[in-house]
Amino acid sequence: MEEIGFVGLGTMGRPMVRRLLAAGHRVVVWNRSRPAVDELAAEGAVPAADLAEVFDRPVVMSVLADDASLRALLLDGGVLEAARCRVHVNLATVSAAFAADLARLHADRGIGYVAAPVLGRAEVAAAGKLNVLAAGEASALDLARPLLEPLAGRIWELGEDPARANVVKIAVNFLLAGAIEATAEATALVESYGVDAAAFAELLGGTLFPGPVYRGYGGLMAERRYEPAGFTTRLGLKDVDLALSAARERELPLPTGSLVRDALLEALAAGWSERDWATLADLARRRAGR
Amino acid sequence: MEEIGFVGLGTMGRPMVRRLLAAGHRVVVWNRSRPAVDELAAEGAVPAADLAEVFDRPVVMSVLADDASLRALLLDGGVLEAARCRVHVNLATVSAAFAADLARLHADRGIGYVAAPVLGRAEVAAAGKLNVLAAGEASALDLARPLLEPLAGRIWELGEDPARANVVKIAVNFLLAGAIEATAEATALVESYGVDAAAFAELLGGTLFPGPVYRGYGGLMAERRYEPAGFTTRLGLKDVDLALSAARERELPLPTGSLVRDALLEALAAGWSERDWATLADLARRRAGR
Amino acid sequence: MEEIGFVGLGTMGRPMVRRLLAAGHRVVVWNRSRPAVDELAAEGAVPAADLAEVFDRPVVMSVLADDASLRALLLDGGVLEAARCRVHVNLATVSAAFAADLARLHADRGIGYVAAPVLGRAEVAAAGKLNVLAAGEASALDLARPLLEPLAGRIWELGEDPARANVVKIAVNFLLAGAIEATAEATALVESYGVDAAAFAELLGGTLFPGPVYRGYGGLMAERRYEPAGFTTRLGLKDVDLALSAARERELPLPTGSLVRDALLEALAAGWSERDWATLADLARRRAGR
Amino acid sequence: MEEIGFVGLGTMGRPMVRRLLAAGHRVVVWNRSRPAVDELAAEGAVPAADLAEVFDRPVVMSVLADDASLRALLLDGGVLEAARCRVHVNLATVSAAFAADLARLHADRGIGYVAAPVLGRAEVAAAGKLNVLAAGEASALDLARPLLEPLAGRIWELGEDPARANVVKIAVNFLLAGAIEATAEATALVESYGVDAAAFAELLGGTLFPGPVYRGYGGLMAERRYEPAGFTTRLGLKDVDLALSAARERELPLPTGSLVRDALLEALAAGWSERDWATLADLARRRAGR
Repeated sequence: MEEIGFVGLGTMGRPMVRRLLAAGHRVVVWNRSRPAVDELAAEGAVPAADLAEVFDRPVVMSVLADDASLRALLLDGGVLEAARCRVHVNLATVSAAFAADLARLHADRGIGYVAAPVLGRAEVAAAGKLNVLAAGEASALDLARPLLEPLAGRIWELGEDPARANVVKIAVNFLLAGAIEATAEATALVESYGVDAAAFAELLGGTLFPGPVYRGYGGLMAERRYEPAGFTTRLGLKDVDLALSAARERELPLPTGSLVRDALLEALAAGWSERDWATLADLARRRAGR
Repeated sequence: MEEIGFVGLGTMGRPMVRRLLAAGHRVVVWNRSRPAVDELAAEGAVPAADLAEVFDRPVVMSVLADDASLRALLLDGGVLEAARCRVHVNLATVSAAFAADLARLHADRGIGYVAAPVLGRAEVAAAGKLNVLAAGEASALDLARPLLEPLAGRIWELGEDPARANVVKIAVNFLLAGAIEATAEATALVESYGVDAAAFAELLGGTLFPGPVYRGYGGLMAERRYEPAGFTTRLGLKDVDLALSAARERELPLPTGSLVRDALLEALAAGWSERDWATLADLARRRAGR
Repeated sequence: MEEIGFVGLGTMGRPMVRRLLAAGHRVVVWNRSRPAVDELAAEGAVPAADLAEVFDRPVVMSVLADDASLRALLLDGGVLEAARCRVHVNLATVSAAFAADLARLHADRGIGYVAAPVLGRAEVAAAGKLNVLAAGEASALDLARPLLEPLAGRIWELGEDPARANVVKIAVNFLLAGAIEATAEATALVESYGVDAAAFAELLGGTLFPGPVYRGYGGLMAERRYEPAGFTTRLGLKDVDLALSAARERELPLPTGSLVRDALLEALAAGWSERDWATLADLARRRAGR
Repeated sequence: MEEIGFVGLGTMGRPMVRRLLAAGHRVVVWNRSRPAVDELAAEGAVPAADLAEVFDRPVVMSVLADDASLRALLLDGGVLEAARCRVHVNLATVSAAFAADLARLHADRGIGYVAAPVLGRAEVAAAGKLNVLAAGEASALDLARPLLEPLAGRIWELGEDPARANVVKIAVNFLLAGAIEATAEATALVESYGVDAAAFAELLGGTLFPGPVYRGYGGLMAERRYEPAGFTTRLGLKDVDLALSAARERELPLPTGSLVRDALLEALAAGWSERDWATLADLARRRAGR
C-alpha cells in the first residue's frame, strides 16, 4: 500500500482515484472545486487541506485539463518549489514543449517526473483498462509503475524522456483526427452515389479498418448523431493544434494536420464547437452542396 | 456446377480461377498472354480459342487492370456486341463513370452486369477470403452470388446500381491512402522526438488502430522496407485519382485526396514509383530535413 | 496582304477577324454555327463552303473552345489529313499534352504549327492589344508573325516547342486563380475585423499589387457582384485542371492548384458555376460562418 | 515643429528618424543598443536618458521587432503606466490580438493609440515614400497625421479600431506570401517544359501582374539568387503565422495560409531559414525531382 496525492478530479480523475482506492492505496485528493472532493471522500479518499499537502505525499498523480491549468497550479503558486514528493506522475496530455520544461523543473528540485498520458475515456478508466503511455527516468518509472497498474490495461513504456510520451499521445490523436476527416469525406462521397452511410461504416469496420474508430465515427456520421458529444470539435481543434505545435518545435510540416485544423475551424465557425467532431461529415456534405 | 467464362489471368485472376475449379465449376479461360492460360489449363481450366468464346458462356467473370484494358477488349473489338452470356461479373476496380457506362451498355444488350470489386490481395484470393463488394440488378446478382461465394470471405451487397460497388471500393482505397499519409507524417513526427517508429507502429495496432493497416504500414515505414512493394506508389496514385474523379463527377471536393495525390506525385518525382507506397514516410522525413 | 483561313468565330474570334480585315488581309472564315459567319461576311470576310476550304489557305488561324472541339473538327473529320495550308496558328488554350500531339501531327503532314494562345478578353482583342504567347519552329513563326501583329499589343516568343506557349498561358491562368483565392481569403479576413473590403481592394491596387487583378477582383468581392461573369467559376475550374494536368505530365505536384481546384469545385457544388469566379470570396465567407 | 519621442532605431527606425529631423522636428531617441543612438545624435537627434523620458514627449513613435519586444519594453517595465505622452504611434506590425490589448491599455491611461504599420523597406522609408496603414481614434489620428506625413508616400486611414490597421498589414503580407508560393510553383512548372524562368518572370510583369512582386520574385527564382535576403524565410513564416493567428481569433480558416506555412516550414527544415523566401522555388523544384 502506498500513499498517493491526487490532483484533478474531473471526468477522468474520479474513476482513476476509485481504481487506486480499490487497489488498497491511501489517496489524498485535491480539486479546484469542492463537490468532487466530497464525493470521493465519501468513498474513502482523504481530502487535502490544500494543494501543498498533496505534493507532500511520496507519489503525486495529476490529471489537469491543459498546460495553463497545470502551470497555474503547480508553478505560479510555488507548489512545486516547496514540494516534498519523490515523483510526480502527470496523466494529462500536455504540449511537447511544456513536457520538456516540466521534466527540467522537477529535475532541478530533485523530484522524479513521469509523463503518463492515457488513451481511453472515462468508462475505460473506470474499468482500469486505459492504455498508459509512460516515459521518465528509470527510477521514477519504477516508483510510478505499481500505481499505474490499477489504471491500465497496458502500460507502454517509451523511454526516459517524458516529452516522448506526450508526443506519442499527440500523434495518436492526430491520426484519429486525420481518420475522422477522411471518413467524413469518404462518407460524403459514397452518399453522393446513393450508398447508405451506415452500411459503409459497417463495411469499413468489417474489412480494412477494424476497431472502433472508422466504424464508430462512420456510424455517428451516418446518423448525424453529434450530441451528446463523445469528444467535441473544440477539443479536437485543441489536439490538432498540439500536434502542429509539437511539429513546429522540430521544424516539421504536418500537412494533414493543417488540413484538419482548417476543417475544424470551419466547423467552429459554423457554430458546431460543442458537437462531436464527427460533425466534420456535415462539412464534407456542405462542401458538396448537400 | 456452372460453366463460367473467365478473362484476365493476372495475379488476382489465377487464384480466383483455382477457387472456382476447386468448387467444381467448369471454367473457360482467356488471357492476353498465353502462359497463364497454359498454367491453368494444366490445372483443369478450359482454354478458349478467343475472347468471344468466353463471352458465350452463361456467366462471365473478368478481372482486368483498368478502364482502358476493359474498354479495349470488351468494347472496341465488338465482343460485348456479340456476346451471348446472361451476366457479366466485373471483379476489377473501374472508375465510377465507366461503371455507369458499362451498366448501360450491358442493359442495352440484355446482359446482366454485376460490379464486384474485391478487397484483398492474391494470397487472400487464394484462400477464398476476399471481401467482395457487389452491386447489380437483383436477377443478375442472383446468378452471380453462387459463383462469388468460392472467392469470398464475405459478400457485401450494395444495391442495384453497379457504380455503388465501385465507388465504395474507391472510397475504401481512398481511406487507406489517407491513413498511410497520416501515418507517414505521424511517424516522422514521433521520430523527430526520438521515439522508435517500430514501437509506435505496434502501439497504434495495440490501441486505437487494430487491424493490419496502421501497424503494417507503420512497420514498413519504421524499417524503411519498401521493396518488394505490396502496392506501389504508382498504383496508389492511380487509386487516388479514381477517388478524385468519382468525387468530381458529383461536384464534390475531396481535400484529403488532393493532399495525398500531391504527396504521391512528389514520391513519383523522387523516383519512388515502384516502391511500396509506405515510402510516403520518406517524403515526410525529407520535408522535415531528416 | 495575305490570304488567311480563320476558324472559330466566338467572342474572341470575331474581333480578331475584324482586326485582320482592318489590316487589309483577305480572311476566309468558317464557324460551326452560321450567324457569326454572316455577320463577318457583311464586314468583308469571305465565307468558306466548308472547313476544308479554310485549311487550303496558306495560313490558317483557329480559336476553338477546348481540346475536344479542335480534335473533333481537325482530326476526326480528316481535315488536317487533307489540308494544304503552310502553317496553322492555334490561338486557343489547349492542354500541354494536346499541344505536343498537334505539333507532331502537323509536322507529319509538312505543315508548320504555331501555338499562340492569348492573354486578354474580347475588348482587348478588339483594340488589337492582346498579349500573344507564341511558340513554334522559326520558319512557321516567320509566317505567323505578320498576321499576329494586328492582334497583339505584344508578341512574347517562347521558342520552337509549341507546348511552351501553352504551358506559359496555363501557368499565368494558374497564378490568376491562386491570386483570386488568396484575395478571397484575405477579404474575408479583413472583413471579419470590420475593414471595408472595397477600401482594402483599393489599397492593394495602390500599394504592392498594381494592375487589374487584385484591385479588380477585390472590388467584385467587396460588392459581391458576380453577374454578369467576366470569367465563370466553371471555366476557372477548367483552367486549373489544365494546370494540374500539365504538371502531372511532368510528375510535378502543384499544391496551390489542388487547393484552388477544391475551392472551385465547392463553388460549383454551391450552384455558383455561372458566376464570376470572384465568388470564391463567398466561399471564404461561408467557411468563416459569415 | 513638434517634439517627438522615438523608440526602436533598427533598419526601419533610423531612416524614419532622419525624415522627421529633415522635416524640422525635435526627435528624442532611445534604443536598446547604444550605437544607433550615437549615430542619430550626430545627425541632430536628442538621446534620451531612458525610455521613460521618451514616453514623456507629447507624441511617441515606436518601431519594434515583434509583440514580445514591445511587451517587454512598454508593459513589463511599467513605462506605459508612468507615461505622460498624449499619443503613441506604433509603426510596427504586431498581432491583431496584441493590437486590441494595446488599444485598451492606452485608453485606460488616457493616452491615444494609433496603429500605423507600414508597407515598404528601408530604402522606401529613407525616401519618405512608405505606405502607412493608420487606424486609431480621430483625435489621436489628428495628432499623428502631421508626423506620419514626412514618412509616407500615402497614408491609408482605416478607421478608429487600431486592430484594423494591423490586420490589413497582415493580410497584405499574407497575399504576398501566397503570390510567392504560387509563383514558385508556376516557375517549376514552366521550367519543366523548358521555358526560361527569367523570360516567364518578365512576361508576368509585362502582362497580368505589373508591379514588383511577381516580376521581382520570379526574377530571384530564375537566378536562384537568395542571398543576401530581402526578406528571409524565417520572417516570412512569422508573418504567415500572424495571419493564421488573426484568422483564428475570428474562427476563420485560411487554407492558403496553411499551405504556405507548411512550405515555409519545409524550407526552414531544409536549412534555408536565412535565405530570401523566394527560395520557395527550390522547394517546388525539389518536389518535382529537379
